[in-house]
Amino acid sequence: MRLFPKEIDFFELFDKASRNLINASRSLLELLEKFTDIENRVESIHRLEKEGDLITHETIRRLNKTFLTPLDREDIHALACRLDDILDLIWAAADRINLFKIESQIDGAVELAKSLKEHTEVIHRAIQELKKKRYSMVQDLCIEINRLENEADRIFRDAIGRMFENEKDPINIIKWKEILEHLENATDRCEDVANILEGIVLKHA
Amino acid sequence: MRLFPKEIDFFELFDKASRNLINASRSLLELLEKFTDIENRVESIHRLEKEGDLITHETIRRLNKTFLTPLDREDIHALACRLDDILDLIWAAADRINLFKIESQIDGAVELAKSLKEHTEVIHRAIQELKKKRYSMVQDLCIEINRLENEADRIFRDAIGRMFENEKDPINIIKWKEILEHLENATDRCEDVANILEGIVLKHA
Amino acid sequence: MRLFPKEIDFFELFDKASRNLINASRSLLELLEKFTDIENRVESIHRLEKEGDLITHETIRRLNKTFLTPLDREDIHALACRLDDILDLIWAAADRINLFKIESQIDGAVELAKSLKEHTEVIHRAIQELKKKRYSMVQDLCIEINRLENEADRIFRDAIGRMFENEKDPINIIKWKEILEHLENATDRCEDVANILEGIVLKHA
Repeated sequence: MRLFPKEIDFFELFDKASRNLINASRSLLELLEKFTDIENRVESIHRLEKEGDLITHETIRRLNKTFLTPLDREDIHALACRLDDILDLIWAAADRINLFKIESQIDGAVELAKSLKEHTEVIHRAIQELKKKRYSMVQDLCIEINRLENEADRIFRDAIGRMFENEKDPINIIKWKEILEHLENATDRCEDVANILEGIVLKHA
Repeated sequence: MRLFPKEIDFFELFDKASRNLINASRSLLELLEKFTDIENRVESIHRLEKEGDLITHETIRRLNKTFLTPLDREDIHALACRLDDILDLIWAAADRINLFKIESQIDGAVELAKSLKEHTEVIHRAIQELKKKRYSMVQDLCIEINRLENEADRIFRDAIGRMFENEKDPINIIKWKEILEHLENATDRCEDVANILEGIVLKHA
Repeated sequence: MRLFPKEIDFFELFDKASRNLINASRSLLELLEKFTDIENRVESIHRLEKEGDLITHETIRRLNKTFLTPLDREDIHALACRLDDILDLIWAAADRINLFKIESQIDGAVELAKSLKEHTEVIHRAIQELKKKRYSMVQDLCIEINRLENEADRIFRDAIGRMFENEKDPINIIKWKEILEHLENATDRCEDVANILEGIVLKHA
């Protein structure tokens, strides 16, 4: 008989959530790179977003039902919510491309989506290392997320600066500004995830 | 002598807060439907917003003074804050109509305000059922809020899509985009309330 | 041997964080008043923002390492995060002036920055009084922050109203609307700080 029968479940759920996140960020990058077949690509990201909702909901449900948890309750809750936030923002960015009937690329959007994809890949690895209790690896990966987020911030600011220089149609500015902001907010939430993971590691070190 | 002398108070405060919320959302709907006498209507929503602030403040004050609470402290705190957020967003939407000197309606705004009003009515009923410990009723009402929020999301996206198709004045787009976003954020916060209520029910089930 | 060896540290860190915040808000006010040498001024605010990040990080790190804390853990965490939020928003406002290549002032921006500077000065004093356990002084200063925030809200709304009346270039509206919103959000986060401080006082009263 195991003392912590539920222990493995939360890590499995986080593993699933972060894999799903990678799929979404890869689909978004492809959408922005190819800029064809937009409606179908957006719809497939929507499916991943709904899948993520189910995983988040299941995580919160189990958390509310479980007395003993492998991590602090608030950390499990915060991690599940922030992973879901990232996915929501990826979906929001994709959705707006469709909703705003965006017809052409803007400088910097692909680069930002590429960076976001890298963020999600590192988050996934960090969660796997956390499960294996390899805390110093988790810490290294969190530092890597912080580095990526600084880089993404630079990419975002450059893209915004160039847009205001080159784009003269205010309606296009309104549209792309929102999309770029969703992407940048997604990388901010990735940094939140890194902070939560770092906090967990510090408590166990 | 009662063991939990304060127990009933929190429910009374939540009852008051959610009644106040219904009044605000009804006033906002009327404002958008009639589009006359705007300044007075906005001012009356402002009064409700200030009334809500007092209720929230009183809730937090009692929470900080009370050792034994009928619900988890963090749930009481989160519920009070999210109800206040909804009210703030209703007020923000009303205020912008006045501040931006909006002169004509936009397609979808009334429909979204109607949905928001329905959200607040269901929240009020859910809080009443929670007080009576009729947990399965609370759960049903939370599912209803989730359904309403999905519907509101569709209404919002349709309204934004049509606005970008039909409205050619970028300044009008800036103004109405903000107002529609406040309404949509309000329904998002309603969903947060549903999640908090669901969490409470799960702990007591 | 002291029982609470770490007690003094958190107050010192909050003292440092709020001093740093004053420096940032003063620099922002000067930037908006003088509107010369913009790049250098923005860069010096960036340095303060990075300094603030280090202080926040150190606070969270010690919190995670300390078993006994002079205040509730969640209050220390919330206070550190909200102080950092204010600084981030000051930095965001300054950064946008540079990034958007803003060339001329807008009515109300200086007044709002002046109010924000006053907010940060009162926060600093409230933190000093909290350390000295002079709780009724803390409460008075929190009331003062609430008063300032109401005033800032009025300044912000007036500035937005006048901008939409006078400015006809939608791209300028997009730019200044974002900057004014960052300033106004910063004062909102100051009010959050006041609420946290009031909560702490109520627990100790």
